Amino acid sequence: MTLKNTYKNIINLIKDDFIMESCTKCGNPNVIIKRKASGQALCKDCFIKSIEKKVIQTIKKENFIEKGDKVLVALSGGKDSVVTLEILNSYAERHIIELCAVTIDEGIAGYREEGVEIAKAHAKRLGIPHKVVSFKESFGIDLDEIMARDDHRGSCTYCGVFRRWIINRAAREFKATKIATGHNLDDETQAILMNYLEGNTENLAKIGPKTESKSELFTVKIKPLREIPEKEIGLYALAKGLDIHLAACPYAQESFRMEVSNILKDLTKEHPTIMYSTLRGFDKIRPAIRQELAHDYEFDRCKRCGEPSSNKLCRACTFLEELGK
Amino acid sequence: MTLKNTYKNIINLIKDDFIMESCTKCGNPNVIIKRKASGQALCKDCFIKSIEKKVIQTIKKENFIEKGDKVLVALSGGKDSVVTLEILNSYAERHIIELCAVTIDEGIAGYREEGVEIAKAHAKRLGIPHKVVSFKESFGIDLDEIMARDDHRGSCTYCGVFRRWIINRAAREFKATKIATGHNLDDETQAILMNYLEGNTENLAKIGPKTESKSELFTVKIKPLREIPEKEIGLYALAKGLDIHLAACPYAQESFRMEVSNILKDLTKEHPTIMYSTLRGFDKIRPAIRQELAHDYEFDRCKRCGEPSSNKLCRACTFLEELGK
Repeated sequence: MTLKNTYKNIINLIKDDFIMESCTKCGNPNVIIKRKASGQALCKDCFIKSIEKKVIQTIKKENFIEKGDKVLVALSGGKDSVVTLEILNSYAERHIIELCAVTIDEGIAGYREEGVEIAKAHAKRLGIPHKVVSFKESFGIDLDEIMARDDHRGSCTYCGVFRRWIINRAAREFKATKIATGHNLDDETQAILMNYLEGNTENLAKIGPKTESKSELFTVKIKPLREIPEKEIGLYALAKGLDIHLAACPYAQESFRMEVSNILKDLTKEHPTIMYSTLRGFDKIRPAIRQELAHDYEFDRCKRCGEPSSNKLCRACTFLEELGK
Repeated sequence: MTLKNTYKNIINLIKDDFIMESCTKCGNPNVIIKRKASGQALCKDCFIKSIEKKVIQTIKKENFIEKGDKVLVALSGGKDSVVTLEILNSYAERHIIELCAVTIDEGIAGYREEGVEIAKAHAKRLGIPHKVVSFKESFGIDLDEIMARDDHRGSCTYCGVFRRWIINRAAREFKATKIATGHNLDDETQAILMNYLEGNTENLAKIGPKTESKSELFTVKIKPLREIPEKEIGLYALAKGLDIHLAACPYAQESFRMEVSNILKDLTKEHPTIMYSTLRGFDKIRPAIRQELAHDYEFDRCKRCGEPSSNKLCRACTFLEELGK
């Protein structure tokens, strides 16, 4: 997708926020966003600075990185992962951390190719070590092949499990000390609200800014964009002129997450701070929930692939056996 | 409102649940409800029994009543409070508890009169000591008079505070050991979800099956219908031939609670167990939240009215001073 198409898509996403007002910070009349939550109107430069400042604040507050960390970015080529890479690169430029990236090719014809190319171009531009790993080479089968079968469990079920498997392994191969994912405020509040509604307190105890598994077999995962709304990430990418992959996955289905996403989007129209307040409230009760409900599973290694697993076979290998691979 | 009108209203409320199937429990072909959540189809008698059984289970599980309790029912004449009275009366008939009731006349012309009459009739029918207490006699001003002023804070703000004041005082006058309110599953999950979304963890810590204030100045409040969906309470009243006040308060406004109520109703169509799962999930994390966040305020007595208050003036008296009463 070219930058022009990207532009059209993002304008559509944020059109409610366009207004005629000058920048609250510097007076520049070319305002690109009016934040309903804070009342701030911002020009391009001040908007870019505000996003970077907020992400850096989150990184500090949550102790996401330490000097000397090697951070692996899970880089799909979509706006969230590209922006994660871009902002973390400012730490790499100042030699605080080292960066590397992995892109997963699930094997979805007509969709994934563009994301892979965009991811490669960003890694090359920033001089970051980058691997593309496919489902096919890892598991002997790709998502299109799985979805052509009659007995599949739904695309997202495989995709989530197989991607996590590849990312965990890539982190060890790169000797990464952290894995950064592009989860944004929308993703995080959707997960929280889904689990509130489903009463799934065990999952609720697992949500948070970073994974805190005591097992050394897992690399700690961090979410630098956790407090940034999805549409502001899109606007940041546009304002910085970053090429991003905007196509939607052809296998995306109506799901409970989508219903919850629509509920939050609708509520945000009249209550612009609702996603922030949901996240803050959750973060306040999170320590209590976690202490009460989080289980530290004993992790051993999967008998088939050697990856960490609380059962004899990890979920990826369970699926692969089902698929006869 | 006559029973015929009541019938029409309730049919409207539950029409999605009507189906042609015989009773899962007894085979009776005259089924009045099909529960999507459980798949059960029930005839009138089995439905009535199932509601009573569920309420009795809740009362046991939550230790709502002990032998010798005197329970004051906050009886508006609406379906929830009438059904609360009706089911608690089965305990009074077996001499396990004593019952009494209070009805509050806020002074809303053309609306409240019918509710008061219905409440009186139920108390008389069951031989239960009953008081009607008006805002006018308690505070020298009624809700219509407050709402005619330009500087009011919105009807529900006064109504909630003034009603609680009257109910607490009536409980002491009746020497009641418990106060029973008609809060149902819908009310409870709305309150939970509102506070999840607003991140209001202090309010969240206060929600629960019974108030647990350590102050002896307050009578413990219990919610026997907390696990019964609103529409099943309406159907129970209908099935039992109970006259109920169905009119909506003329001062009811668009509110965040109403938005949240609509969200839950919409979700229930495709996810019939969603309110149950939200409540169960909340109840699981409630002890942890409460321990971490509930404050036990020091209660003293209001300098003006002598009711318990954490400030010099209680909220009711603060409002009354504003109103010049």
